[in-house]
Amino acid sequence: MDNRLIGLILAGGDEAAFKSKTPKVLHSLLGTSLLRLTAEALGEVGPARLIVAGLPRDLVAAEVAGLTVTIVEKTKDKGPAAAVHSARKEWARDLDGDVLIVPADLPLVESAVLRALVSRHRKKGNAGTMLWADAVASGGSEKRIPVREIEDESDFPADHPSRRIPTGIFVFRARELARVLLRVIKPGHKGASDLTAAFGLLAAAGRPVGVFLAPDPEDVQRIVSRFDLGRAADRMRLRKIRALAEGGVTILSPASTWIDWNVKIGPETVVYPGTVIEGPTVIGRNGRIYPNAHIVRSVIGDDVHVLGSTVIEDATVENDVRIGPFARVRMQTTLRSGSRVGNFVEMKKTDFGPRSKAMHLSYLGDSEVGEAANIGAGTITCNYDGVNKNRTIIGSGAFIGSGSELVAPVRIGRGAYIAAGSVITKDVEDDALAVARGRQVDKPGWAAARRAKLQKEKSGGSKP
Amino acid sequence: MDNRLIGLILAGGDEAAFKSKTPKVLHSLLGTSLLRLTAEALGEVGPARLIVAGLPRDLVAAEVAGLTVTIVEKTKDKGPAAAVHSARKEWARDLDGDVLIVPADLPLVESAVLRALVSRHRKKGNAGTMLWADAVASGGSEKRIPVREIEDESDFPADHPSRRIPTGIFVFRARELARVLLRVIKPGHKGASDLTAAFGLLAAAGRPVGVFLAPDPEDVQRIVSRFDLGRAADRMRLRKIRALAEGGVTILSPASTWIDWNVKIGPETVVYPGTVIEGPTVIGRNGRIYPNAHIVRSVIGDDVHVLGSTVIEDATVENDVRIGPFARVRMQTTLRSGSRVGNFVEMKKTDFGPRSKAMHLSYLGDSEVGEAANIGAGTITCNYDGVNKNRTIIGSGAFIGSGSELVAPVRIGRGAYIAAGSVITKDVEDDALAVARGRQVDKPGWAAARRAKLQKEKSGGSKP
Amino acid sequence: MDNRLIGLILAGGDEAAFKSKTPKVLHSLLGTSLLRLTAEALGEVGPARLIVAGLPRDLVAAEVAGLTVTIVEKTKDKGPAAAVHSARKEWARDLDGDVLIVPADLPLVESAVLRALVSRHRKKGNAGTMLWADAVASGGSEKRIPVREIEDESDFPADHPSRRIPTGIFVFRARELARVLLRVIKPGHKGASDLTAAFGLLAAAGRPVGVFLAPDPEDVQRIVSRFDLGRAADRMRLRKIRALAEGGVTILSPASTWIDWNVKIGPETVVYPGTVIEGPTVIGRNGRIYPNAHIVRSVIGDDVHVLGSTVIEDATVENDVRIGPFARVRMQTTLRSGSRVGNFVEMKKTDFGPRSKAMHLSYLGDSEVGEAANIGAGTITCNYDGVNKNRTIIGSGAFIGSGSELVAPVRIGRGAYIAAGSVITKDVEDDALAVARGRQVDKPGWAAARRAKLQKEKSGGSKP
Repeated sequence: MDNRLIGLILAGGDEAAFKSKTPKVLHSLLGTSLLRLTAEALGEVGPARLIVAGLPRDLVAAEVAGLTVTIVEKTKDKGPAAAVHSARKEWARDLDGDVLIVPADLPLVESAVLRALVSRHRKKGNAGTMLWADAVASGGSEKRIPVREIEDESDFPADHPSRRIPTGIFVFRARELARVLLRVIKPGHKGASDLTAAFGLLAAAGRPVGVFLAPDPEDVQRIVSRFDLGRAADRMRLRKIRALAEGGVTILSPASTWIDWNVKIGPETVVYPGTVIEGPTVIGRNGRIYPNAHIVRSVIGDDVHVLGSTVIEDATVENDVRIGPFARVRMQTTLRSGSRVGNFVEMKKTDFGPRSKAMHLSYLGDSEVGEAANIGAGTITCNYDGVNKNRTIIGSGAFIGSGSELVAPVRIGRGAYIAAGSVITKDVEDDALAVARGRQVDKPGWAAARRAKLQKEKSGGSKP
Repeated sequence: MDNRLIGLILAGGDEAAFKSKTPKVLHSLLGTSLLRLTAEALGEVGPARLIVAGLPRDLVAAEVAGLTVTIVEKTKDKGPAAAVHSARKEWARDLDGDVLIVPADLPLVESAVLRALVSRHRKKGNAGTMLWADAVASGGSEKRIPVREIEDESDFPADHPSRRIPTGIFVFRARELARVLLRVIKPGHKGASDLTAAFGLLAAAGRPVGVFLAPDPEDVQRIVSRFDLGRAADRMRLRKIRALAEGGVTILSPASTWIDWNVKIGPETVVYPGTVIEGPTVIGRNGRIYPNAHIVRSVIGDDVHVLGSTVIEDATVENDVRIGPFARVRMQTTLRSGSRVGNFVEMKKTDFGPRSKAMHLSYLGDSEVGEAANIGAGTITCNYDGVNKNRTIIGSGAFIGSGSELVAPVRIGRGAYIAAGSVITKDVEDDALAVARGRQVDKPGWAAARRAKLQKEKSGGSKP
Repeated sequence: MDNRLIGLILAGGDEAAFKSKTPKVLHSLLGTSLLRLTAEALGEVGPARLIVAGLPRDLVAAEVAGLTVTIVEKTKDKGPAAAVHSARKEWARDLDGDVLIVPADLPLVESAVLRALVSRHRKKGNAGTMLWADAVASGGSEKRIPVREIEDESDFPADHPSRRIPTGIFVFRARELARVLLRVIKPGHKGASDLTAAFGLLAAAGRPVGVFLAPDPEDVQRIVSRFDLGRAADRMRLRKIRALAEGGVTILSPASTWIDWNVKIGPETVVYPGTVIEGPTVIGRNGRIYPNAHIVRSVIGDDVHVLGSTVIEDATVENDVRIGPFARVRMQTTLRSGSRVGNFVEMKKTDFGPRSKAMHLSYLGDSEVGEAANIGAGTITCNYDGVNKNRTIIGSGAFIGSGSELVAPVRIGRGAYIAAGSVITKDVEDDALAVARGRQVDKPGWAAARRAKLQKEKSGGSKP
């Protein structure tokens, strides 16, 4: 910890371009928020205190859960300097210390950069130090460069000179900041940023000030619009993917894979293109996540294959399980070790036993399935009677014939056998057979006669 | 409108690299066509007339529906100058006016650039003005730079000088163009572009000519091959995403989201990665479009959640509806307010009533469902008898037990109850129960005996 | 073939950053391996012999199947020079020839570059020639540039000078290489790359040496980590997409489409965003592959529409077929000409006849379906009895009513008709009707009474 450093996050700021009821810095970025990411980066610098100024206490508290943060609510005055002033009791206790000020709409800033900024600021004995960055183009769809006229070849302009601009990140000696702060808050002060003006006042007064350049300007671009948010997310996405890859995960196509900041994946697991993994999620080692899978808030073990276009949400998957494609496993479902879940199968609030299989076109809801049971294609637990949800229990080794409906509440015994196409309304004993379907009756020639009749009617019905 | 300006689109051009039966400029770009996009951009400049030269009338007319366009068909002569000449009756009526010529394979050009070009052309009193652009590298897969030899460190070449090249976009004073046009059409004229040659003739004759540089060279790259088309689409895609974001839509991952040019989305709606939305489509405010959804030609209301991997095609979705994941709603289906459609459910030509639910593994085709009906898992409307499609009517408050087949034409009364696993072939009265299934019979011990028998047969059948 | 050239691939190398049990150069890149891609590129240069040094024989042999390669196993000595030395018997037969040395972790290198390198090497009469490249930034997530201090505006540093670095690719005259090789292997030799040291020894001895610059530095970046692998794959992906586009395929969004190196697609086929096609796969002309489809090891004919989110694996699809969305066709299934497979349909080991249809919620496994059969929604072949897999045969023109289970082994005759909701356990004759279901019984008023009872119980059960 750095006892002479206070971290101050400015969580207010201009939000008009977001057109949102949600404060800008609470918007999601790779599954976390701008504010949270900024607080984590600033927290890693190790300040004695971390202050967030500018938003209602409850909103901030929910967002920074787990971090030690002092919250200062919004004042009526506008602008960064007013926000800094509103938090003065928190940072001005130690006037010989430094205040590192970071707007919360710079969530990509890295702690190493902040740490270097503070280090240089102190080494130089500065009163204040600004972080600057090269201006960057804003992507293919923005037109900031005007149409230029060219008279002849020699008149062709050189490449646009790169410009440096302030990032909005500052570190000040607390005493020096306190000295000039009020002067820049007074109404009518001109200038784009009043903290820059405070910096200017120090310089004009002959105090030592400095400017540092951020190593990568893309990391300190302000998020002004939702498009900036999307671009930042795609950048943060690659940062996450890099970290996973360095841990031994293969992400086949970084371009089309989305993995939230709050996701852990074990080594030797391979993630195919088009996958979306939302946090908090943990995936074990040696897994395969096939294309277009969507995993949300789940815990997945080792050696698990999630086949294509599978949705797993709020579920637990043990080791050596194979799910999908086109499976949906949700809401407190657990797939036990070695189980298999196939295509067009949904499970909800189900404990699916070890080595059991449900391979095709089934719905298991509010169920408990034992070991090594076989759930035939088209099995449906009728868990809802229009008013209540009821439970289905299927014993170990049971065989549910295809196209069966199990009308809950119902219990199928261990090793029991349900004949295909049965509607089971009563409990079935262990090792018993249950049949509940019609008997087959054949009528020779019927189909040929019917075809002829229908075709005749149809052609008769069309206008000649 | 600009009364002294004629817009002329050259819709012919070299198409060999496309290897297509469809003319190049009619190929799709973000759900519209190269020709249409060019016509819209040129139309926004406000010319007195907009001419398209070089393609059969019917092809052009279909593509520019809704725009006022004069169509000039193709002549046998080749090259841009011949195409311009073929349209001379249309643009040469006002010889003191200007003709703005844009090839239709430059669909990313923006009207602001064209407007600036005309403005500078007139301010300078030019006879002709060309739009130029910096040459750009063509992406990672193209090799235009030769292998270079380096003898020693000092011999390392400087970075490749950027080159400027003509874009193919011109504005001419009509009288001046008419004066030189025929001279560049004559067979045997050398030079890559004959319109550039016309420009050169004016310059050689001492007429005032000028060159302007496009602000962003990527916007005026010709689309020569299908790879160029893909790159242009990915660029146009970001332009569209930016526009939506500025309107208050959150697009989480611009890198992997595809939204057609002709799609509208309301503010506070969030679009997840991997989504494909084809136009014309309108989506309301405060929606959630989850990963890998595919929406085509549909109208979707406010507060709608489209869960992952859902396909919506030619459908209407009212407010506060939740669909998916893995749902398919198509062909004139309407989902009424507050309805819920779950996984592995298909609807076709169905009017699905307010607050009704069909949550699992069902097919509703040619159906009409009232309010607050509950369609159980595995419900199937048997709408096809091998010859005709028949209708199913389900009354408000009806409860269709899971695994039922409704053999159309059939009507289920209001508040009626269909027992699970029933095959319904006759109409059911309001508030009645209908059952059509076998009765459950159990045979104790049968399953254990059968398992033993099958296992014995299997091991007996294998060669020792 | 070039009789005086030996190609030598170094398949060892530092693998620690991969954290993998699999040797680095055997990892997959766009469906093939680093080693295979390097061998193909070097093979295209046409060396008299192609040597792979550094991995166990069986691993290499499996990977380079179909190429003529001499394999030299790993020695205990470390480093490229030791690997080159271990293969000396293979390359030193012709001391007047040249040895082109390419590490296998440079899989993006193109044969044209290698050929140019050899050509310049010989033209200059060099003893050795190195391929160099501009250093490249490593993407958004890497921080190699240090934080820099800026005192004032004039102190702003110029853009970082581009640096050139060795790629690890060399061509040596065999005799010259043999002369210096042993000297750089001896333990304790300092320097990052011992082959560079060998090069330096030649230079120091006054032998003629040269340096060439690769035209595109991204093509000769070493793959050190799994993140490099992902970035290389995304680059290779675009190279593949470009090649397909030049052949007449439209790939709408290069940004989000993954097509393996070993995939062929015919002209006028359109591939939508989010698609993943794994090789070896062949797709015909004039097809449509809709969003998020996943195709693996399959052969697909002309005029085939693969609708969204469809999975095709180890299957054959003839001409004019329409599949999906949400279909899964796998494991030796063949879809015959003109057949239609709809949503939530799975086929496994099934021969599905010409013009037959299975449009909804069905599972056909171990089946044979004739011509123009209609498989109703919810049809399930009960192919598994808990021990064996059994076959289902469906004759041409048969109509399987919705919600039927066909309990295999079973044969449905030509033109036969299965009533909806039937469980068929016995063979059905040609043109016969088979019914196997309960008869419908209605109980008027029952549903209303039950609703009232259940609601009363529910409200009674809740604590007041």
